[in-house]
Amino acid sequence: MKLIRFGEEGREEPGILLADGRRIDASGEFQDYDEGFFAMGGLEALAVWVEDGCPGGAEVHPLVRLGPPVARPSKIVCIGKNYLEHAKELGEGIPTEPALFMKATSAWSGPTDDVIIPRGSSKLDYEVELAVVIGRTASYVEETESLDYVAGYSTFCDFSERTFQKEMGGQWTKGKSADSFAPMGPWLVTADEISDPQKLRLWCKVNTELRQNSWTGDMSFSVRQLVSYVTRFMTLLPGDVIATGTPSGCAMGMSPPRYLQAGDFVECGVEGLGELSQRVVALG
Amino acid sequence: MKLIRFGEEGREEPGILLADGRRIDASGEFQDYDEGFFAMGGLEALAVWVEDGCPGGAEVHPLVRLGPPVARPSKIVCIGKNYLEHAKELGEGIPTEPALFMKATSAWSGPTDDVIIPRGSSKLDYEVELAVVIGRTASYVEETESLDYVAGYSTFCDFSERTFQKEMGGQWTKGKSADSFAPMGPWLVTADEISDPQKLRLWCKVNTELRQNSWTGDMSFSVRQLVSYVTRFMTLLPGDVIATGTPSGCAMGMSPPRYLQAGDFVECGVEGLGELSQRVVALG
Repeated sequence: MKLIRFGEEGREEPGILLADGRRIDASGEFQDYDEGFFAMGGLEALAVWVEDGCPGGAEVHPLVRLGPPVARPSKIVCIGKNYLEHAKELGEGIPTEPALFMKATSAWSGPTDDVIIPRGSSKLDYEVELAVVIGRTASYVEETESLDYVAGYSTFCDFSERTFQKEMGGQWTKGKSADSFAPMGPWLVTADEISDPQKLRLWCKVNTELRQNSWTGDMSFSVRQLVSYVTRFMTLLPGDVIATGTPSGCAMGMSPPRYLQAGDFVECGVEGLGELSQRVVALG
Repeated sequence: MKLIRFGEEGREEPGILLADGRRIDASGEFQDYDEGFFAMGGLEALAVWVEDGCPGGAEVHPLVRLGPPVARPSKIVCIGKNYLEHAKELGEGIPTEPALFMKATSAWSGPTDDVIIPRGSSKLDYEVELAVVIGRTASYVEETESLDYVAGYSTFCDFSERTFQKEMGGQWTKGKSADSFAPMGPWLVTADEISDPQKLRLWCKVNTELRQNSWTGDMSFSVRQLVSYVTRFMTLLPGDVIATGTPSGCAMGMSPPRYLQAGDFVECGVEGLGELSQRVVALG
């Protein structure tokens, strides 16, 4: 299934994207795709409803805004330097274990929402990532079982302000958390539709120029390893997001760096998961 | 006012601690002390209800467990190395601007709940802190106005696993986020009752031995500065928590370090805000 949320920011309703491209309103049956939904077997109930032909579900007009496909999560856990080529371009060595940091969930944003340049920013950067959405409470999960805890996958962009992240006394969270810095979508693809999360192309274009172009097989630590690893340090709750790191090609890694400017367009995609599209705008 | 939440973990109800020590159930009038409560003028409505003598509010038995005095927040933003004596004992220099990191909100815990030693832990440490609870949405707030965004104050312990924090490839979040690592309470003291947040004693005892004993006047960056500073990097939402850093005396700063062991008792207090009391237990 492909889950969507549609409507105005902060008032999104749950829906489904059908194989024929139609968007169907599921709000008559389900309140939201949030912690309670995943915890209470919502995905299974949704599958039954879709199987039944979405009874009572009206079609949503294609021009209605899509929001992030799950409600604001309790946490967005991000993995640093997880692609081999990206670690090399940074020249900081290849991590022997995953680096973890958090993005403020107030940065949560929809798949076509603008990314807003924060005040004082001079080094705004893009990072396309494969996002993993957790389906049930996960603590000390073994690698052999960790994929059972994944509800689905989505395309994510870990927008980053490098001055804030690296030149202001730490930690990275400082450069990762501005409003609009965490767009996800356009839909959540349930895990049953992704046979191998380590065999997906992913890319990022800036103004149609291909800047990042890699595949998830270049990860140092696989999704299976990451989900297990994170649960050694914290309990993941239903609906939580792990952003699994970005491949090479960020502005920071270019010589000279080519950071984003107001007016730029950023498109991030992951094979089979759809594309994000952000216009870069100055804070009003 | 002194806000409390009482009852079983995850099912706490809101209440009030009166000046005479009685605890009054406010759940007939208020759903919870959460983001919506603070955003919708809940504190003002609560003040009116208390002024009226808490009509309909039954007394809560003193033996009922207290939970954290506000609902699990959208984020817990922590400040690193913010006390001069603590920065000195770490020997890493005094920060020229605040270091920010996040604790997973799944670590949220009540004032007398056990702190649980995570698997693989060998360096469990305590950090008493003054916690600031945000009362309304705050973005790019000036220092001159930042205290207007504070709903109140509470005692916080930023439990930390130093191996996870410092010896596993970063970032600090990794050592700050285990379940039970973020106890707050026993109550939220509204801002009107604290005339100057930089003039409060705070302390931490381990098995009655005084380990930390300082005052908030030793902060490098004041509450006023911190609230403003954080809002340059992220939007703070109603009910969010800023943990303002810890004074000297952590186990990590001792020579040799004396980390916590199962069976220890940790008591943290801030002047006028009450005390936390944690028993250290091994993961079952």
